[in-house]
Amino acid sequence: MTMREEVAARAKEVDKIIMPMMPDIIGPQKTIYEVMEYTMSAGGKRIRPLLMWETYKMFGGTSKVIEPFMAAIEMIHTYSLIHDDLPCMDNDDYRRGKKTAHVVYGEAMALLAGDALLNFAFETAAKAFNYTDHLQDAAKAMQILGQKAGVFGMIGGQVVDIEMEGKPLTMELVEFIDRKKTASLIEASMMIGAALAGAGDGEIQMMKRISRKIGMAFQIQDDILDVIGTEEELGKPVGSDAKNNKTTYVSLTGIENAQAEVKRLCEEAKQQLELFIGEDDFIMDLITYLIDRKN
Amino acid sequence: MTMREEVAARAKEVDKIIMPMMPDIIGPQKTIYEVMEYTMSAGGKRIRPLLMWETYKMFGGTSKVIEPFMAAIEMIHTYSLIHDDLPCMDNDDYRRGKKTAHVVYGEAMALLAGDALLNFAFETAAKAFNYTDHLQDAAKAMQILGQKAGVFGMIGGQVVDIEMEGKPLTMELVEFIDRKKTASLIEASMMIGAALAGAGDGEIQMMKRISRKIGMAFQIQDDILDVIGTEEELGKPVGSDAKNNKTTYVSLTGIENAQAEVKRLCEEAKQQLELFIGEDDFIMDLITYLIDRKN
Repeated sequence: MTMREEVAARAKEVDKIIMPMMPDIIGPQKTIYEVMEYTMSAGGKRIRPLLMWETYKMFGGTSKVIEPFMAAIEMIHTYSLIHDDLPCMDNDDYRRGKKTAHVVYGEAMALLAGDALLNFAFETAAKAFNYTDHLQDAAKAMQILGQKAGVFGMIGGQVVDIEMEGKPLTMELVEFIDRKKTASLIEASMMIGAALAGAGDGEIQMMKRISRKIGMAFQIQDDILDVIGTEEELGKPVGSDAKNNKTTYVSLTGIENAQAEVKRLCEEAKQQLELFIGEDDFIMDLITYLIDRKN
Repeated sequence: MTMREEVAARAKEVDKIIMPMMPDIIGPQKTIYEVMEYTMSAGGKRIRPLLMWETYKMFGGTSKVIEPFMAAIEMIHTYSLIHDDLPCMDNDDYRRGKKTAHVVYGEAMALLAGDALLNFAFETAAKAFNYTDHLQDAAKAMQILGQKAGVFGMIGGQVVDIEMEGKPLTMELVEFIDRKKTASLIEASMMIGAALAGAGDGEIQMMKRISRKIGMAFQIQDDILDVIGTEEELGKPVGSDAKNNKTTYVSLTGIENAQAEVKRLCEEAKQQLELFIGEDDFIMDLITYLIDRKN
């Protein structure tokens, strides 16, 4: 099995856990389920729940308490894509080779489906309290989820991204946006995995540092693929950053420096992770895959 | 002090509790704080946190654990107004006599401020775990909040409301929309107040029945005011339901029957509440105020 096939197989395991947690709506409001389901099953790589799951196991976690949070982090990631794609935001018609939610279901329903997924993420995460006697750990995980998804995390990055649209940015601001908009949810994934397994605050902070490197590398790789990738591989138009005059790590430093930075960040993350696990662990492969990916 | 002044005074006490819980944002994303603050302080009556607080005290609650949830319910109410007012939804330019968020700050920032308030509501509610040793009660409150705000609650009502726009509706569907879109958060308020004070599941269900009556009466009163109120009192254009061919309880049964229904629901709610408190309690005045209000 190639690394890509291995990650895809693990993503399927994730789906077996998280998709049954989607709401079973049979009332007059059932359309919203269709929109939520359409976007949740639109070919995401499940990077965040995978990282959360692996980190949870790495710290010795063995219970079902992790499952609602795995679903929650993917729901939050998905809602953010729906809202990002709306006409008043990035106005994107395609993602992962499929029409975006507002193109298929209209803007109002896409807006509500995003709201619904964000809300349902917390609704789902709250179910974790039924699966554990360590309520304090679940409470800590809930607080991390809120912080990393909100104004001090992902939304904070989206705000600056929108405000600075088309303007030239400093490297400092590019790093702020990348860290908030992209790395935050990846940080949340590993921090929550650790917290729910009963890791101490020191260990949770270590996971934050490691996952921030992974998150930054992930975003820079995205920017690289927007330049050197193909539309077929990405499932969306390439060259959009250049077209929109978007300042990125790549536009500031060039492709080669960006590629070197991705490599550096991933190697550092892996080295630090070796304090906790062996180098032949799946999480190491997962990180390598994140650098080598073509989409 | 008139009843209106009494409610306004209590709302100020609520504000002293909930407004300091708003995020203190000083980084590059600080614009979002301005939008969140603008809408949170746009003259809401604070009905939901007031009902939550009174119910909490009614069941003997005395700690600060209620405070994050009081803020959370008002944040969720406020985000739902921002998103409801967006051009792709109801496209309203005024609310409570002030320009709506998207008119002042643009659609993208209004969308993100709504997302931010919804997220921050859960982020804030999660802080309640730091104020109590009864983590199970806080977990129950968190689950109620998620359920009543989401696809099985408020958002479920918004979905049907949008899908059925301009179409003739049966009374059954009108009641579904009113119950989900409006009553859900009022149910959440009283149920959470009870849950955090340590009430049993039976008592929480009783609060659900009582608050549903209050919520339905509240929505029908809104529909009545849209017909007989004045723009000056309401702070927004009147007659919008008729203009938009919106089927409401009033359009189906007429003003007089609607007024009788509001009175009946409120009297029943008060009678049932008397099982728990005396008839001279503030919560009784609050319900009377909700019927008699002009805005």
